[in-house]
Parts: sequence; structure tokens; C-alpha cells
Amino acid sequence: MSAKIRLYVEQPLGQGQSVPLTREQAHYLFGVMRLAVGGRVALFNGRGGEWLADVAEAGKRGGTLTCLELSRPLQLPPDLWFLFAPIKKARTDFIVEKAAEMGAARIMPVQTEFTNSERIRQDRLQAHAVEAAEQCGGTFVPEVADLQRLDKVLDAWPEGRQLMFCNEAEVGSALRLAENEKGRPWAILIGPEGGFSERERARLTTLPYAHVVSLGPRILRADTAAVAALTMWQQALGDWA
Amino acid sequence: MSAKIRLYVEQPLGQGQSVPLTREQAHYLFGVMRLAVGGRVALFNGRGGEWLADVAEAGKRGGTLTCLELSRPLQLPPDLWFLFAPIKKARTDFIVEKAAEMGAARIMPVQTEFTNSERIRQDRLQAHAVEAAEQCGGTFVPEVADLQRLDKVLDAWPEGRQLMFCNEAEVGSALRLAENEKGRPWAILIGPEGGFSERERARLTTLPYAHVVSLGPRILRADTAAVAALTMWQQALGDWA
Repeated sequence: MSAKIRLYVEQPLGQGQSVPLTREQAHYLFGVMRLAVGGRVALFNGRGGEWLADVAEAGKRGGTLTCLELSRPLQLPPDLWFLFAPIKKARTDFIVEKAAEMGAARIMPVQTEFTNSERIRQDRLQAHAVEAAEQCGGTFVPEVADLQRLDKVLDAWPEGRQLMFCNEAEVGSALRLAENEKGRPWAILIGPEGGFSERERARLTTLPYAHVVSLGPRILRADTAAVAALTMWQQALGDWA
Repeated sequence: MSAKIRLYVEQPLGQGQSVPLTREQAHYLFGVMRLAVGGRVALFNGRGGEWLADVAEAGKRGGTLTCLELSRPLQLPPDLWFLFAPIKKARTDFIVEKAAEMGAARIMPVQTEFTNSERIRQDRLQAHAVEAAEQCGGTFVPEVADLQRLDKVLDAWPEGRQLMFCNEAEVGSALRLAENEKGRPWAILIGPEGGFSERERARLTTLPYAHVVSLGPRILRADTAAVAALTMWQQALGDWA
């Protein structure tokens, strides 16, 4: 028993649980996907795994689903934060999508000295993370945090969390992540396209929990760098092993 | 002496060489970037490294640049082909951009049994590869081949070229690339979003030169998979080491 349509909902899920639909969800399921009563949907809420559900009521402005059975248990990603400096709108959306697909647990837009954007649309970015989880078969949705200044984030850095710092000035020298850092909380930081300032770079390279990593001899766009860094980390320390 | 504006041209480059501009190039340099006579540009043609040039003549419909000195030698990528099944237009453009940024030597769109698109705009995809090289500081531009059927490509597979086959059915088991395969010609194959057919998968997994690789426990979109696979390959066998 499987369902091709995956839908993120906010309600609790469980055996026999009834799940009311919003107007948008009803439009998607019944208008776009043409589901009728009895049709199957896979539901997840980021907390309770994936549930096979069927359509109990279908209307133009709403409807109800009923949970039938747990189809996949909750799969939590590793404890990995993904920090990046927002860039142009479309590429920022892409970075959030990629970080969610690649299994970041928390996505944190940070404002660096060379970041142009002063604000982000957190709700829109969160929606991209949800859509990525729906698409990639995930049962977890990373939280997208509000934009914070990088120096404030570093001031409040939690004890014990390691930081993989992708320094575009390190082109050429590839530092491998040590396998013995596995199982600890981590974070990845990707710089803005204009790079970090001298002051930021000086601080980042001297932090005791920072691990400087090169992403090869070519300059990568920020969205490419995001996937490359997440691949390196997942392979060495994450759940790809 | 450096120049921030990078321009791909088709003409030969060399000391004192005069480079006539097309109307589009003149519009970009003089209309958009507001360069005047004496302004500096970095030129590359994919064969002769990067040359610092200055503007000798600037006009609305054309102009001339003069090569001053070699600013960077030609840096060839590893002998890596990148094969992928074209998907929706915007994501196909992205895949070509990412493959060029990540250092593929040749980009080959292939038609699989589950590929929807019957044709591609080779000229448009080639232009994306040029733009990626301009952006990422590359001195080489990968050739984008015309769309070919995957089975025909495999029928004519060159002796000795290895193939990293990213099989979405392999989710969970990660095969590491053997370091002793370094220095050989290679190719990466990324499947269409609908996956490979049973017949294709059976053929691909039994090819003597194929190395099956997993891209982690989550289902990745094709453009994400492209960057992830190129990262794995470049780290293990390419020029990131």
C-alpha cells in the first residue's frame, strides 16, 4: 500500500485520526490532483512519521482525510545546522530547497558584512523547505530560522557544536573532515557570493570549533557550494555512510 | 593587474592580438558594464588560458579589444563526462550550469526510457556552460553534446572509460569510489526524475566499467543529484584532492 501524493500537514497523526484540510490543501488534492473520496495520500507532519490516509470527505473549500496506517517511521536527519548568507531571491529559494533535500536539521540565514539582503521572507522559505520534504520523501521538515547577524550567531554559539567553514579563499587545499568528529552536533557555513570580509574571515579561522574546508579549485556559486558542502559532510560524518 | 569582467570569445588569444567584438559583446561591455577605451577585460577562449585585455575601440555595434598579457594559464578539468537525462527546462539549464561549475569536461544529455523531452536546445545549453565558466573563473568551457539515446551511447562506449552510475534504487548503501581508479577517463550518469527502467537498470548494473553509487538515504532532485555526484567524484578521483 503506497500513495504517490505526499502532503505535509500540521495536525497530529495516528491510527484512525481525522485530518481536516485547509482550502489550499483541498484545492491541491481535489482540484489539481483530482482525488476523490477513497483516494490515497501519504501524510507527514515532521514529528510522527508518514501515514497512509484516505479521503473521507472532498469539497471545494475543504475536506477530511483519515489516517489508515503508519507507512514509514520518522527519520530524523543528523544534528546539522546549515548557515548561509541570503543572495538573490531565486537562488536563496534554491539553497533552502537543497539544504532540506540534503538533510539539514535546521536552516539558518545569516547576515554577513557583504550580504546585500537585510531581510528575508521566512514564511516563504519555510514553505520551500516543506515542499522539498514532500518531494524528496522526507518525514522531517527542517525549521528555517529568521535572518540573524553572523556575529550574533557566533557570540551565542552552543558549546560543543562543530563548524565546517567553507572558505572560498582556501581554493586548492582540501581539508578532509575527521571521521572521529562523527556523532557530534555540527554546522556548515557557506559564505555570500562576495565572500567574507577580512574581519569575519579572521574570526572564523581562529574559532576553536571551526574546521576550514575547501570546495575545490573552481569558484562555486552559493547554491552549488551548498550542495557540495552538504555532500562532503553527509559522506564523512552524516547519514550517507 | 586584474579585471573583474570575464568574457568568453571564440577568437585566438595572444600577446598584442586584436579581438573584434560582436554586437552583443559590445552591448554588454559598453552599454551594460559601461566600459570605455582603456577599460580592462579578462578574455578566455577555452583553449589559450585567460588574457588581460584592454578596450582599443568602443562603439554601439562593435569594438576591439587588445590582449595585453596572459593572466592565467589554461586549466583543463579532469577527463570526466557528465551524462544526464534532461528534465524540465529550468532544471536542465541548472544541471548544465552546475556540471560546468563543478568541472565536467563534456556534458552529454541522454534520452532514457523515462525521459520526457525528445529534444533539447543544444545552443542554449552551450550558452549556459559558457556563462558558468565566465562566472566561476574557469578557463575551459565544457562542450554540451546533442541529445543522444542512452542505449546508443552505451553501445559505442569507449574502451577504458569508467562509469559512476548513480542508482536511486541503491538508497542506503554507499559505495566509495576506489582511489586507484584515479587518472583514468570517467563518466557520471544521473537518472531522470522518474528513475531508470528495469531494462536500463539491469544493463547498467552489469556493465564491467560501471560503479554503482548511492547518493544517500533521501531522494534527490536531478539537479541536486548532479552536484552531489560531481562532489563525490571530484573529492575521490578528481582535482579536489
